[in-house]
Amino acid sequence: MSTTRTAVEIASQPTTWRQAARTLPQHTSALPRRGERVAVIGCGTSWFMALAYAELRESGGHGETDAFAASEFPYGRRYDRVVAITRSGTTSEVLAVLSRLRGTVPTGAVTADPTTPVMDLADAVAVLDFADEESVVQTRFATTALALFRAHLESEDALPEGVAPVEEAARDAEQALTAPLDENVRTAEQITFLGSGWTYGLALEAGLKMREAAGAWTEAYPAMEYRHGPISITGPGRVTWGFGALPAGLADEVRKVGGTLSESDLDPLADLIRAQRLAVAVAEAQGLNPDTPRNLTRSVILTDAPA
Amino acid sequence: MSTTRTAVEIASQPTTWRQAARTLPQHTSALPRRGERVAVIGCGTSWFMALAYAELRESGGHGETDAFAASEFPYGRRYDRVVAITRSGTTSEVLAVLSRLRGTVPTGAVTADPTTPVMDLADAVAVLDFADEESVVQTRFATTALALFRAHLESEDALPEGVAPVEEAARDAEQALTAPLDENVRTAEQITFLGSGWTYGLALEAGLKMREAAGAWTEAYPAMEYRHGPISITGPGRVTWGFGALPAGLADEVRKVGGTLSESDLDPLADLIRAQRLAVAVAEAQGLNPDTPRNLTRSVILTDAPA
Repeated sequence: MSTTRTAVEIASQPTTWRQAARTLPQHTSALPRRGERVAVIGCGTSWFMALAYAELRESGGHGETDAFAASEFPYGRRYDRVVAITRSGTTSEVLAVLSRLRGTVPTGAVTADPTTPVMDLADAVAVLDFADEESVVQTRFATTALALFRAHLESEDALPEGVAPVEEAARDAEQALTAPLDENVRTAEQITFLGSGWTYGLALEAGLKMREAAGAWTEAYPAMEYRHGPISITGPGRVTWGFGALPAGLADEVRKVGGTLSESDLDPLADLIRAQRLAVAVAEAQGLNPDTPRNLTRSVILTDAPA
Repeated sequence: MSTTRTAVEIASQPTTWRQAARTLPQHTSALPRRGERVAVIGCGTSWFMALAYAELRESGGHGETDAFAASEFPYGRRYDRVVAITRSGTTSEVLAVLSRLRGTVPTGAVTADPTTPVMDLADAVAVLDFADEESVVQTRFATTALALFRAHLESEDALPEGVAPVEEAARDAEQALTAPLDENVRTAEQITFLGSGWTYGLALEAGLKMREAAGAWTEAYPAMEYRHGPISITGPGRVTWGFGALPAGLADEVRKVGGTLSESDLDPLADLIRAQRLAVAVAEAQGLNPDTPRNLTRSVILTDAPA
């Protein structure tokens, strides 16, 4: 297995997920209360985790939950609480939203670094410093933030049907760390990731990971949307990867056009670890260092960000 | 210029947009009323038009407006009206939503074909038969539906700042039909489409068009998200295409990593015509017929669709 910093951080996820669940009581002041109408914001990977959580929470019956890229926040709407996800605590667009909302709505944040501006701009902050990362490409902070949200829903007995407790996901994560990656998937020319409900955010994140770490051609869609265009990209040498169960009939359609199907019985969050490992493997096969992706920095700080 | 059916339909858009604006009074019963909380649904291209309209309407102050892929409709939410976009009037997922909502909330639909099941399942239907298409790949029906919504906002004096009347967009569309396509863009290995607010839906649609008609590697993001991952794909031989004005500093970043920037002063909806033309040109350069895209049919009808 790879010895990059990214690979080491990927491997720690079962531990950091369990730690998130165990330390939940320290973090709840930054998290939504039952029944509230909530917006969750983030950028890049954090936006995709926000999407996953929003669907989990709303389908679990906890209240309407929207997720937005911070730069696209709809200021005309009224929410009971706005929660930000920001690993670095310094992302310009997230800070701009928190700053503008200050005093008008309760805000919370989940971050990895307790020495950053988000500590002052959010009303309450959940610090997951045990999940901080050296890598530019996010892996464990993002999934650990989602594990925290998931543990919170679990503690309130409001996980949607079919979604397992974090401990089960962590056990699946251990399997995901060692399961062999299919040769057809590792050498694919293109991968389309599919999810539905909360797993659509995971599909988006898998696509971004492959793009960031490996410069690969990947796409992501809600699973049922696959037949409305994306299927035209599938063919021999290309892969369709489903997070969670695929809709009836879809596996047959992938095979009919000559594509390789990647399905897994693992918890979908654990299956994301397989995609993270794939991104590292594909990057290294191309002579790239997944720790230092092209054109990216660890945190995006804009000198001319809109206030 | 191409003589494919798709190309002919692309060229008719200034005419069909004007016809949508002119016939608006016949269609308003299917459209949202001012102040209502509205959900707009569709699949594929229609979903992306729904996203564009939702942002236009909400930012114009007409009321909260969400857009969903029909398969991901959140049944737990309460809306004042649900509006579907479906060219064929037969798309399984759209009909499933309308059928399930029947009698619980006022519904409307915008379609091209008045002989289809959507006529019975929606409470009111706007039939844009003059914008129907023979092509599998949607072009003019989708943009004409959006032109209708835009004309409706215009008629209520609630276009967001900076968004022009449909007549101006139609004039820009005439220019978009003849403007030369940059050689660097026509031969690009990859294109990333960016938009913000209502133009993000246009970026998604441009990406889908290139994928469907030309099998091309394209991506689409909210413009400010570009720095949070997608920029790692840009480089020499690759293009970043902005719908509407790009955020400050972004053009410089694209150039810094060696990418080609495509910007336009045209109305963003007219600029989508340039992307449609690009999809046809790239398809034909590869010996593909844009009228018959790989693996796609004109309407997706599932025999095992969830009810």
